[in-house]
Amino acid sequence: MKKIVVLGSTGSIGTQTLDVVRSHPGEFKVIGISAHSNGDLFEKQRREFAPKKAVIKEVGENKEDFNERVCELAVLEEADIIVNAIAGRAGLQPTLAVCRAGKILALANKESLVMAGESVMNSARKNGAKILPIDSEPSAIWQMLEGERPESIEKIILTASGGPFWSRSREQLEKVTKEQALNHPTWKMGPKVTVDSATLMNKAFEIIETRWLFDVPPEKIDVVIHRQSAVHSFVQFTDGNLKAVCAAPDMRVPISYALFYDEKKKTRVLNKLPRLDLSKMNMTFEKPEHSVLEGPKLAYEALKRGGDAEGKLCIADEIAVEKFLKGEILFLGIYDFIKEYIK
Amino acid sequence: MKKIVVLGSTGSIGTQTLDVVRSHPGEFKVIGISAHSNGDLFEKQRREFAPKKAVIKEVGENKEDFNERVCELAVLEEADIIVNAIAGRAGLQPTLAVCRAGKILALANKESLVMAGESVMNSARKNGAKILPIDSEPSAIWQMLEGERPESIEKIILTASGGPFWSRSREQLEKVTKEQALNHPTWKMGPKVTVDSATLMNKAFEIIETRWLFDVPPEKIDVVIHRQSAVHSFVQFTDGNLKAVCAAPDMRVPISYALFYDEKKKTRVLNKLPRLDLSKMNMTFEKPEHSVLEGPKLAYEALKRGGDAEGKLCIADEIAVEKFLKGEILFLGIYDFIKEYIK
Repeated sequence: MKKIVVLGSTGSIGTQTLDVVRSHPGEFKVIGISAHSNGDLFEKQRREFAPKKAVIKEVGENKEDFNERVCELAVLEEADIIVNAIAGRAGLQPTLAVCRAGKILALANKESLVMAGESVMNSARKNGAKILPIDSEPSAIWQMLEGERPESIEKIILTASGGPFWSRSREQLEKVTKEQALNHPTWKMGPKVTVDSATLMNKAFEIIETRWLFDVPPEKIDVVIHRQSAVHSFVQFTDGNLKAVCAAPDMRVPISYALFYDEKKKTRVLNKLPRLDLSKMNMTFEKPEHSVLEGPKLAYEALKRGGDAEGKLCIADEIAVEKFLKGEILFLGIYDFIKEYIK
Repeated sequence: MKKIVVLGSTGSIGTQTLDVVRSHPGEFKVIGISAHSNGDLFEKQRREFAPKKAVIKEVGENKEDFNERVCELAVLEEADIIVNAIAGRAGLQPTLAVCRAGKILALANKESLVMAGESVMNSARKNGAKILPIDSEPSAIWQMLEGERPESIEKIILTASGGPFWSRSREQLEKVTKEQALNHPTWKMGPKVTVDSATLMNKAFEIIETRWLFDVPPEKIDVVIHRQSAVHSFVQFTDGNLKAVCAAPDMRVPISYALFYDEKKKTRVLNKLPRLDLSKMNMTFEKPEHSVLEGPKLAYEALKRGGDAEGKLCIADEIAVEKFLKGEILFLGIYDFIKEYIK
């Protein structure tokens, strides 16, 4: 049995990870869980999985102390695989701790690579840690690059649903409300990620993530709008072949791929997750270049600038979305705020 | 330099193979060519590539004698890779010869696997020969299965353009002329293959080819109609992931993949062949089950029956298409003739 630690166990990815564990009895032993909030669910999980160690933020505990306890949990000696499903920037320290410990990290926390992609990957390399992405796009890319040589990559093409506002004009976007922004057409996610999906800032972060995770230069990363979210990304190879990975929009698919991954055995698990029904698909693809939703543009700029530009982009977006959700700025004001912040 | 023999050098795949060779100077030395007809082109090829051995059917030479000379060419001691681009059933003997010689066979001749898939694959296995498919669908499948375990395959889904008559009613199909049948929407091919594409018999043969080439049982092979011919096939895996390989409809793409394939190095060549422009794509997929174009159905029946049923299907189709092209039978009469023949 693989011994597993789940950081952020009460969040969307955390609960789905435990769902995958639950549906494969005998495969995993949950030895640690951590949560920032949602104490009731946390208690239920603790009773169900009986982990050796369980960490939840105490009332009045400060961020740093809690984070330290999470990092200790993240590097439990016996752990075979650590799932980092923490939301936001708080996920970075545990990621670095797991890398230093040279363990296998199943990484759903995008901010780790956006804030410090280069250091994280360097540390992983130096300490023999493995980073297995949990997210539909990087999981797709990972699968497409298995057995391929880096020099065969001509382009990595990230697909983007375009969110709820794709193809709306600037005038229409100026009137977007919080309620509209929180209503994503395909995925059910937390509010921050849902707004990021509407602004295409989530795609911006994926561009940065892809750049570091797969060690490809930004000019080899493209974005294509694919409203149906069936194809989770493409890789264009130098010989004219183009690979794609598709799946039903269910996070348990990339979670399963990461949890069951074995470098030597190359196992894929047998599961009953929904399959994509091709016969009902009509797939379209559009270029996003001229969109008012300028998330991707900001990512390329940050990567070009280097230094702390990527981290600043991440922080700026976090603050901007918070302001938008509080009603302090308009939807398009998110871009204005970010641009001012990273200037 | 890889030493290469091209059988069927004046045909569509043969000339495109030499095209790939020509655009990569220093990579290949053509040491043998053979042709059944088109003497002028053959002479030009002989002058350009100066092969050690060149075989063309002499006036009045009988099939068997010519075939024997082709087989001798196919097993030239120095050859590193033999491309079998012979049209029709005549390709089988050279395929078997290369398998017995334990060489690398780049196989465009579909009939080899339709007539004798099991024996061909057994012989290849026994003698250490490698069979690398040259055709868009099996090349796509081959790429998708690299690094995957056989037990992870849930389904191989062959895409079919549907040919010029997809979605026509039985009444309309009864009136189809030879000229209409020879006008394929996407690919430019010889007359036999073009008619096979209109009847979906080409897909029938690909089902049989796939069954043997990748050693998957027929119940794991599906067909989906995909009018745009952008996706060349899908593989559905047991964990819910679905891979696809797309490419522009240019045979030089699968030819390049096979010619440059190196089991250890996993090299993909850099070429200037056309890339698929995703932003112009609108991809649709339909189930073919209820179509009047019953090619695939006949393949599943033949595979179920076993024995010489697959070979008979192949011969029956060859005769039927000849009769159709001569105006002796109607378009739908092709199915009637085949069903009567294989009874």
